[in-house]
Amino acid sequence: MTRLHDLLRDLPAADVACAAAVHERAAQILRPSGALAWLDELAEWIAGWHRTERPRVERPVGLIFAADHGVAAAVAVSAYPVDVTAAMFDAYRHGRSTISAFARQVGATVVAVDVGIGNPTQDIRYAAALDPVRFDDIVDTAVAAVERLDGDLLVVGEMGIGNTTPSAAISAALAGGETAAWVGRGTGVDDAGLDRKRVAVQQAVRRIAGVTDPIEVLREVGGAELVAIAAAVVAARHRSLPVVLDGYVVTSSVLPLVMVDPGALDHCIVGHCSAEPGHRRLLEKIGKRPLLDLDMRLGEGSGAMAAVPLVAMACAGITEVPTFAEWFGEPR
Amino acid sequence: MTRLHDLLRDLPAADVACAAAVHERAAQILRPSGALAWLDELAEWIAGWHRTERPRVERPVGLIFAADHGVAAAVAVSAYPVDVTAAMFDAYRHGRSTISAFARQVGATVVAVDVGIGNPTQDIRYAAALDPVRFDDIVDTAVAAVERLDGDLLVVGEMGIGNTTPSAAISAALAGGETAAWVGRGTGVDDAGLDRKRVAVQQAVRRIAGVTDPIEVLREVGGAELVAIAAAVVAARHRSLPVVLDGYVVTSSVLPLVMVDPGALDHCIVGHCSAEPGHRRLLEKIGKRPLLDLDMRLGEGSGAMAAVPLVAMACAGITEVPTFAEWFGEPR
Repeated sequence: MTRLHDLLRDLPAADVACAAAVHERAAQILRPSGALAWLDELAEWIAGWHRTERPRVERPVGLIFAADHGVAAAVAVSAYPVDVTAAMFDAYRHGRSTISAFARQVGATVVAVDVGIGNPTQDIRYAAALDPVRFDDIVDTAVAAVERLDGDLLVVGEMGIGNTTPSAAISAALAGGETAAWVGRGTGVDDAGLDRKRVAVQQAVRRIAGVTDPIEVLREVGGAELVAIAAAVVAARHRSLPVVLDGYVVTSSVLPLVMVDPGALDHCIVGHCSAEPGHRRLLEKIGKRPLLDLDMRLGEGSGAMAAVPLVAMACAGITEVPTFAEWFGEPR
Repeated sequence: MTRLHDLLRDLPAADVACAAAVHERAAQILRPSGALAWLDELAEWIAGWHRTERPRVERPVGLIFAADHGVAAAVAVSAYPVDVTAAMFDAYRHGRSTISAFARQVGATVVAVDVGIGNPTQDIRYAAALDPVRFDDIVDTAVAAVERLDGDLLVVGEMGIGNTTPSAAISAALAGGETAAWVGRGTGVDDAGLDRKRVAVQQAVRRIAGVTDPIEVLREVGGAELVAIAAAVVAARHRSLPVVLDGYVVTSSVLPLVMVDPGALDHCIVGHCSAEPGHRRLLEKIGKRPLLDLDMRLGEGSGAMAAVPLVAMACAGITEVPTFAEWFGEPR
């Protein structure tokens, strides 16, 4: 059993009474009942996890994990060389990336955590990406990162050249179907690269044919930042911190969680649907509808960060707008 | 010829060179080319209308027109009594409505303009909603309202109990097809109300069977706030102010414009697709894809305001993020 198995025990539930109070208030707010539809549900969801009848999002925070991948160093599965991961990590740290710019618009902070830049995983075609010791170390690092955060809504993102290859391997191994259908162009690999990527994913999936534990699948064919994301999402649950999931890599990282415990992602929503074709299929698999569907395919948590204002507005729509009774009772 | 006909002459075009400069920069920004897809196009669109190579959205402004409808006073076509329009207008003025709460999250201001509360239009089943003199007055009021605004992105919204009835009449008259298919439940009218609404719309549409000028259709079966919206959108064009359109009522208000001049809405995007079934059909008719699709059906400009952060982030993604060359040339 890994540290992630331990972490998945005794997950706290949302506060049903707080969510119900917001549900009731939503029906009385100074607008036609149900007119905000899904946004009212988002406010209820925040209320349940924040354990308050007055949900607000005031301190969103982005947490980006970055790492290198052995398979990407060995096979050209990406349109970019592997050292771009380190360069982008530098950009996050200096607030110069796209996610940094988005976060400033949203009033969010961004924290970037290196879980393996310059320390690539094993090539998943031939070996487990991570040995059990390093797997546990990464889980501990991610949990500590979440514990240090000051935020009320967590956006999880990633950077790691080649990381849609492990994402496809996890998805194919756990969700089944044609392996090739889980393999997309990622940052924009060409036809020959796409072929190499499909072959690499097939090799990795075949290698672990006997592995049934979803967490072990993550360790075998995942990557360091994917493991960190899974751990961070569970750590957020233990803090009752709601999470906005990003694109294909993030969703494939948390797929093992929901296969261990169907309620493990109840504190998560999906910010957007990526242009990476496997993402829509994964979202169907985990039964979550994306807030945005804009053909984005950047990663970094950018699609999730783009959805944060919707959650903040949903809460304001409950907390800052009077009910009919309150409004007609206000002095003016 | 009305004042709106005059206003539709000599519409300015976007600055193609500024849009092209942003398009070129987008391909060089520190992220995979094309990774932001539609968001890059939004930034190009803002650049073209702002006539700058450095697009930004810093002062979004909501402009809500409100009015009463003769048909709603005569037939119960809405789930709400007509005096709710005046009560909601009061709420906008005091910053206590849903759009006010959304605007605060977005850093936007909201201006509400009364174009006919307590002064309902004629019942569109039997007479032109507005005579030519009042039509022109409303156009002038709307133009003046836009000229007073201090903003860089305009959200147009509306309030008027019963106003999806004129929306359906305009849509049926100009876009054709089964009249009943353009009639939805608005704020949530019951089955009997829906039947009354269908009959009223059919009566109005039949009454104007000989009218071919789209602006005259707007005057005949529209409403005061619908006319104001159409005029405000054209006035914004003359100021080169980009516009985010809201739901069914707003889109039906501007449908006549695009039928007079196919390029009349080039400075407009659609913020969201409403749950009102006619809206999706109208968006297909005018060839615009909504940024959000969240089942909202509130009006007030709320769905458009909810999309504003996406436009602001799109611009930040161009203006605040370096190109690969800039980033690797920065001292650190």
